[in-house]
Amino acid sequence: MAPTTPTVVVPIDLKKKPNEQKLTLHNRWHPEIPPVAEVKVGELFRVEMVDWTGGAIKDNDSAIDVKTLDLSTVHYLSGPIKVVDEQGIPAKPGDLLAVEICNLGPLPGDEWGYTATFDRENGGGFLTDHFPCATKAIWYFEGIYAYSPHITGVRFPGLTHPGIIGTAPSMELLKIWNERERELEETGLQSLKLCEVLHTRPLAKLPLTEGCLLGQIQEGTPEWKKIAMEAARTIPGRENGGNCDIKNLSRGSKIYLPVFVDGANLSTGDMHFSQGDGEVTFCGAIEMSGFLDLKCEIIRGGMKEYLTPMGPTPLHVNPIFEIGPVEPRFSEWLVFEGISVDESGGQHYLDATVAYKRAVLNAIDYLSKFGYSKEQVYLLLSCCPCEGRISGIVDSPNAVATLAVPTAIFDQDIRPKSSKVPVGPRLVRKPDVLKCSYEGNLPTTENPGARI
Amino acid sequence: MAPTTPTVVVPIDLKKKPNEQKLTLHNRWHPEIPPVAEVKVGELFRVEMVDWTGGAIKDNDSAIDVKTLDLSTVHYLSGPIKVVDEQGIPAKPGDLLAVEICNLGPLPGDEWGYTATFDRENGGGFLTDHFPCATKAIWYFEGIYAYSPHITGVRFPGLTHPGIIGTAPSMELLKIWNERERELEETGLQSLKLCEVLHTRPLAKLPLTEGCLLGQIQEGTPEWKKIAMEAARTIPGRENGGNCDIKNLSRGSKIYLPVFVDGANLSTGDMHFSQGDGEVTFCGAIEMSGFLDLKCEIIRGGMKEYLTPMGPTPLHVNPIFEIGPVEPRFSEWLVFEGISVDESGGQHYLDATVAYKRAVLNAIDYLSKFGYSKEQVYLLLSCCPCEGRISGIVDSPNAVATLAVPTAIFDQDIRPKSSKVPVGPRLVRKPDVLKCSYEGNLPTTENPGARI
Amino acid sequence: MAPTTPTVVVPIDLKKKPNEQKLTLHNRWHPEIPPVAEVKVGELFRVEMVDWTGGAIKDNDSAIDVKTLDLSTVHYLSGPIKVVDEQGIPAKPGDLLAVEICNLGPLPGDEWGYTATFDRENGGGFLTDHFPCATKAIWYFEGIYAYSPHITGVRFPGLTHPGIIGTAPSMELLKIWNERERELEETGLQSLKLCEVLHTRPLAKLPLTEGCLLGQIQEGTPEWKKIAMEAARTIPGRENGGNCDIKNLSRGSKIYLPVFVDGANLSTGDMHFSQGDGEVTFCGAIEMSGFLDLKCEIIRGGMKEYLTPMGPTPLHVNPIFEIGPVEPRFSEWLVFEGISVDESGGQHYLDATVAYKRAVLNAIDYLSKFGYSKEQVYLLLSCCPCEGRISGIVDSPNAVATLAVPTAIFDQDIRPKSSKVPVGPRLVRKPDVLKCSYEGNLPTTENPGARI
Amino acid sequence: MAPTTPTVVVPIDLKKKPNEQKLTLHNRWHPEIPPVAEVKVGELFRVEMVDWTGGAIKDNDSAIDVKTLDLSTVHYLSGPIKVVDEQGIPAKPGDLLAVEICNLGPLPGDEWGYTATFDRENGGGFLTDHFPCATKAIWYFEGIYAYSPHITGVRFPGLTHPGIIGTAPSMELLKIWNERERELEETGLQSLKLCEVLHTRPLAKLPLTEGCLLGQIQEGTPEWKKIAMEAARTIPGRENGGNCDIKNLSRGSKIYLPVFVDGANLSTGDMHFSQGDGEVTFCGAIEMSGFLDLKCEIIRGGMKEYLTPMGPTPLHVNPIFEIGPVEPRFSEWLVFEGISVDESGGQHYLDATVAYKRAVLNAIDYLSKFGYSKEQVYLLLSCCPCEGRISGIVDSPNAVATLAVPTAIFDQDIRPKSSKVPVGPRLVRKPDVLKCSYEGNLPTTENPGARI
Repeated sequence: MAPTTPTVVVPIDLKKKPNEQKLTLHNRWHPEIPPVAEVKVGELFRVEMVDWTGGAIKDNDSAIDVKTLDLSTVHYLSGPIKVVDEQGIPAKPGDLLAVEICNLGPLPGDEWGYTATFDRENGGGFLTDHFPCATKAIWYFEGIYAYSPHITGVRFPGLTHPGIIGTAPSMELLKIWNERERELEETGLQSLKLCEVLHTRPLAKLPLTEGCLLGQIQEGTPEWKKIAMEAARTIPGRENGGNCDIKNLSRGSKIYLPVFVDGANLSTGDMHFSQGDGEVTFCGAIEMSGFLDLKCEIIRGGMKEYLTPMGPTPLHVNPIFEIGPVEPRFSEWLVFEGISVDESGGQHYLDATVAYKRAVLNAIDYLSKFGYSKEQVYLLLSCCPCEGRISGIVDSPNAVATLAVPTAIFDQDIRPKSSKVPVGPRLVRKPDVLKCSYEGNLPTTENPGARI
Repeated sequence: MAPTTPTVVVPIDLKKKPNEQKLTLHNRWHPEIPPVAEVKVGELFRVEMVDWTGGAIKDNDSAIDVKTLDLSTVHYLSGPIKVVDEQGIPAKPGDLLAVEICNLGPLPGDEWGYTATFDRENGGGFLTDHFPCATKAIWYFEGIYAYSPHITGVRFPGLTHPGIIGTAPSMELLKIWNERERELEETGLQSLKLCEVLHTRPLAKLPLTEGCLLGQIQEGTPEWKKIAMEAARTIPGRENGGNCDIKNLSRGSKIYLPVFVDGANLSTGDMHFSQGDGEVTFCGAIEMSGFLDLKCEIIRGGMKEYLTPMGPTPLHVNPIFEIGPVEPRFSEWLVFEGISVDESGGQHYLDATVAYKRAVLNAIDYLSKFGYSKEQVYLLLSCCPCEGRISGIVDSPNAVATLAVPTAIFDQDIRPKSSKVPVGPRLVRKPDVLKCSYEGNLPTTENPGARI
Repeated sequence: MAPTTPTVVVPIDLKKKPNEQKLTLHNRWHPEIPPVAEVKVGELFRVEMVDWTGGAIKDNDSAIDVKTLDLSTVHYLSGPIKVVDEQGIPAKPGDLLAVEICNLGPLPGDEWGYTATFDRENGGGFLTDHFPCATKAIWYFEGIYAYSPHITGVRFPGLTHPGIIGTAPSMELLKIWNERERELEETGLQSLKLCEVLHTRPLAKLPLTEGCLLGQIQEGTPEWKKIAMEAARTIPGRENGGNCDIKNLSRGSKIYLPVFVDGANLSTGDMHFSQGDGEVTFCGAIEMSGFLDLKCEIIRGGMKEYLTPMGPTPLHVNPIFEIGPVEPRFSEWLVFEGISVDESGGQHYLDATVAYKRAVLNAIDYLSKFGYSKEQVYLLLSCCPCEGRISGIVDSPNAVATLAVPTAIFDQDIRPKSSKVPVGPRLVRKPDVLKCSYEGNLPTTENPGARI
Repeated sequence: MAPTTPTVVVPIDLKKKPNEQKLTLHNRWHPEIPPVAEVKVGELFRVEMVDWTGGAIKDNDSAIDVKTLDLSTVHYLSGPIKVVDEQGIPAKPGDLLAVEICNLGPLPGDEWGYTATFDRENGGGFLTDHFPCATKAIWYFEGIYAYSPHITGVRFPGLTHPGIIGTAPSMELLKIWNERERELEETGLQSLKLCEVLHTRPLAKLPLTEGCLLGQIQEGTPEWKKIAMEAARTIPGRENGGNCDIKNLSRGSKIYLPVFVDGANLSTGDMHFSQGDGEVTFCGAIEMSGFLDLKCEIIRGGMKEYLTPMGPTPLHVNPIFEIGPVEPRFSEWLVFEGISVDESGGQHYLDATVAYKRAVLNAIDYLSKFGYSKEQVYLLLSCCPCEGRISGIVDSPNAVATLAVPTAIFDQDIRPKSSKVPVGPRLVRKPDVLKCSYEGNLPTTENPGARI
């Protein structure tokens, strides 16, 4: 056997639930979740993973599963994996863990994914004030390509990547997270100056025991309760990497993660077949189960050597990434711009979030002229290989953000046409197949963003 | 003569000042600034332009010109240019003006540019709290490449583009601009919740007569005074395009601008040899004089056909852009991440501006380990072809922004090295050639961001 | 189960020989080899395949298996596969069969490959007069990357593709092949005017019963004998596609194959992890076993619609290919040139073969200055993602051919250095690990191309 | 003035003939043609050049100028330029001259070019047996794009490059050239085994006084006569570089030329706005006048250090090239294949020239189905950015060559369509505007390749 067949260190049985897997998954960050496997530097190993909801979202035409999803249970992660050097000495706090993504893909027999918008009462998304309903689109894979029965007329190659990859935090780092997020949760509503849109989304998700899964630590035990009350939720990306959602982290990428605990305790999950920059619908990539083939190096003392703390403690750092050399080539892009003026005409000061929101809304409105409902475009821009850029962040008072959409993913020419060219009849898509869980008050193309 | 030699419709004499040019320049947006030239659709025409300061910044080793720049005079624009169709009928409000950038470059004999940071008391920049001093780097061009005596060891191909291209606003649109920006200026200091860093930068630049240049309208006349008191400043990008600073708008790009006045009244300026996404130092691209070869089409009724208002009036729109097919290929990128936690450790809610700030600071700190001062890296990241992305904007409470730097622009390998590879001595650069206008209290690598 | 899980229509058991597989393989082209499977248009199906030698070459340090390989047995192909439309009607002669390559890769547990040079007495290669000995290099795969213990210091992403994909010829087409190749074989030696180098290689491989495997037709039967005496060898690419060795036929590619028999009878094999243009050593890609996920369309009457015969009969056509959108990005290439003057200084008239030979020899000599033996570079250029171009084919008397090598595959800078830059000690590679089957008279760097 | 404004060392006045220019041009290679300028290493300098015919081909609708072109006069080159180091010491035989192409483009006021086929009695082309008539297409430039009134419906960005760049040969090298080409000319007709097509083209162009221009050496003098009788013609690429026609030698490229005489004596000419690999029609790029901005380095002793003679003397070497990082991105290519079987069905042994001929013929036939005449496609494939590859050169008896055409250059979808998609009416182009100099016996689409 060739030395480069990856060893499966975390196997997944798709017929079982997250807590029934041979190596139980976890959905929180905590230093005391025990490793389920150990790997040596230089070893090629495979980590299998469920989709971020652990199978709660089904391949069908109804969004009821999205509407009722229990967000306390996500994301289900595979690991932690302890990393040791050739002499068996574990990675140590202060080291950098370099993780190369050698290969990845769907699990055989499970070559499909989904993109969804949450209900505004259950997580919402970037444009929840415009799109308050739960919606869902299913995607099927044909090798590198994805296509959807719910958003017809598009097909694109995926730049597949794990949404989440990170090391375990130390107790000290965990405390920093909990404190700063609790402060936001408690004081945020008073002071928040973002556009009103986002007000109704939860500000921060603090530790809670509900839905908590901690790997090999049995639910309900005192140890489990203690950890569950301390452990950080997996939604935001943080100093340990985590849910960074960087769409280019595909084959050939290398991630330099800070190490906070002995053995590094690497976890990963939330595989995406494809994602647009920003992952705007929140459940926004093409979410899937899958496998990762990884190889680790330890850079001893690398945190001090390469990372500079950006905050009050030496732990306020961020990972560094090297992007791989393989990605789809697109030659033509249509670029939508947004400035930091909100939908009510209000001026915001260099606010890239507002500017990006407007760029996305502009793109949705434009593309909905080509036979799609706005809900379809919102889902599409969340998961297709579009690029979201901060173009200008200094020209007071307007931040300029742009969203670039590759034109080749459409089966029609979506560029503006000179007045001289007679435009053929635009294709009529089937927005009705996009099922929404609300009866009687569906958002429609005529009534976008209807509030229930 | 071949039919495709461009007609020079706006010539520049580099030995003259902006108000001495044959076709006087302008530095404000107003519908009543009269066109200086007329072009037909399909015609290839050349527009020459001064650098955004009109020659105020010199090719030398001192930043005193940057420190003392009068910002009321920028940006000097060429135009307005009236656009008519083949029958001589002007573009009308409600049309789209499609402007193709066929070619561009420096003016012969002026193949250099500069990147600068403003003093925090005079405009500042994205990181003015960390870098409060005026600094300047000169760049020389060797065809597609730029190199700097002030930031040695880097050389990169430029993706040259105009920072500003736009149509004239109507009076109605101008009024919208002035009102929303005045409201920010007046109420902003009380309510602003951005990280403290940005507090001291001017919030909005309202109309003022000081420094105002209005093309063929003579300074001091009642007409000049009236317009100067109404005309919008050119700093922010707005509904008419303007200072959008989109770094990929190079050869082969096409810009679809809304038309608000008869003839469209196209103006352009602020040529950049190269810019990084965000243009973070504010005077942040490689600023230069230059020429643009353009070709226009009119899409009659295109605003209604293709743009959807995103705000209370039909004028709340944004241009659309098509990127050209030619740009430098880079195969390897090092990516720095930022989350919306500020330097004091404070948590912000999905704030992409804060996240991008942290990504840029992370990149500056990292790259300063390779023989550069932080001031040098700040200038470099503002003007080299780096990409600033909004990677995740939904994972409460953290926005994730990334800054991707192409590794090939450096003459050394800047990637983190495994602990096993002995690292050679890092190159010592010459940060001292970066002159700062403050005596006695220079920011240094040991004392970054010293406040004066 | 998702509808896009591919159905395995040709399974391979790596522990068995080609003639022991459940669906016996074949190594000849003939219309009467019966299909082993049937697929519908639009169906995603998987074809597994052995490496081209059916496992004869082993993962070890000796080239004795290469030296003694029985070339009468190659290439082992999977298929034929009958293709029918949605109504079950087979593809017909005159149709085009569009085959999309949706995915491909190594078989699990078999993630390795080899590149080899044949002995000049047993097949040789493009440079057999310079490199007459059998040599072999083993490559291991780490996801998208390959590396070799026999050619250290290089690592590159593969552009994996099937070397052979084709439809079955009709009896009429088969007759054309046999006649023209027999004529060459019989008259070639007298008239051949190519550089002497190539003289000793076999001119054409005519049908022979030795080594012949014909799928489900049992060896030794009269039917088998009849077909074996008629069936075309698989070495050359021909009108049916076949061994076209186009290195860019990777994920997302689409191949438009002419159909000559009912059902099309598609066969494929000879998987390559990576190949350089020209595949110069003959066993020259990184040869491997693997799987292909395919999807077919039938374009009824497409041969007449899209292909124009280029010869005396309507059968003298060639397939058309669409390349997929995903391939490794390389930004820097070193380009070696050759002109149609041979190694003895003799002038050839616009001979692209001679020009390409000289370009490859130039590249070998150049790269051997960086610590490699010439044998190592010859193997490397045969399998790495280098591009072989016909740059000029009209400038009498010299054809100009070029070979472009991506510099990023090396762990050292291989570009020529200015005389001012002190060059560090070049790395010493281990050419001795490249085992050659000749005792006592190995080609060495000092004695390249020694004739035995 | 900035230090990087290029010094014009060879100016061109487009109103004057080649022998009337201030620095007279030359159209032969000889060591005794005296330098017209001297440059230092590191200096940025500009070389202007006429088109290869020195203005003989006009911007009009008649091909009579092509039919009657005196080929004894081409190519007109600018130079020679003597290169010295910083101490003023010239480049010496045995050095390498590294020439960086910093910028290039058309001369102002002359933004057009042409592609032509020669009459088979006057130079012919790669497919002269199929296309025996003189034809011509004019191209106009709009910045990076070219379009033609004679081949409508295509528009593409140019990858502009000099067709010819080279150093002066030594007398010894010149003697080698003359001998080997004379031998071919004298013995070629008897032994030539290429496909008949090429028979009637001139085999080699030997020195002749007719049409000879030798820079500052006055015509008719004894010195002129002596040199003219010895000097090599400029048609073929050779050991000194020369007419290498490598289409990717654009901005940012670096060429490592061997030095054979003191000062290197660099000459350049034959600017191409764009060229396809192979430049198949012979006058086959978009031929234009233009300028090159260059910068030289001398690598002392570099010939021995980096080049290995491939022939009986140390002079049998070839230049090395580094390709620049900027070229048009194309994402979709249609690939045509050819094998070494000629149009009469005859089998050739691994003959890449025959294979490439068939690939080009296949592409011409295919594309002529989309509203073009075959003559138009022949011209188009000669000058558009298509790639000609040697895909397989070892699979006896067939060489496989491919021609990849970027689909984005057409204003219609040129891919084969599934039988289910109704194809719209194909556009009717205007082949008649392609003027041919033969009266009464034009090749037509119905009668391609008519022999006169």
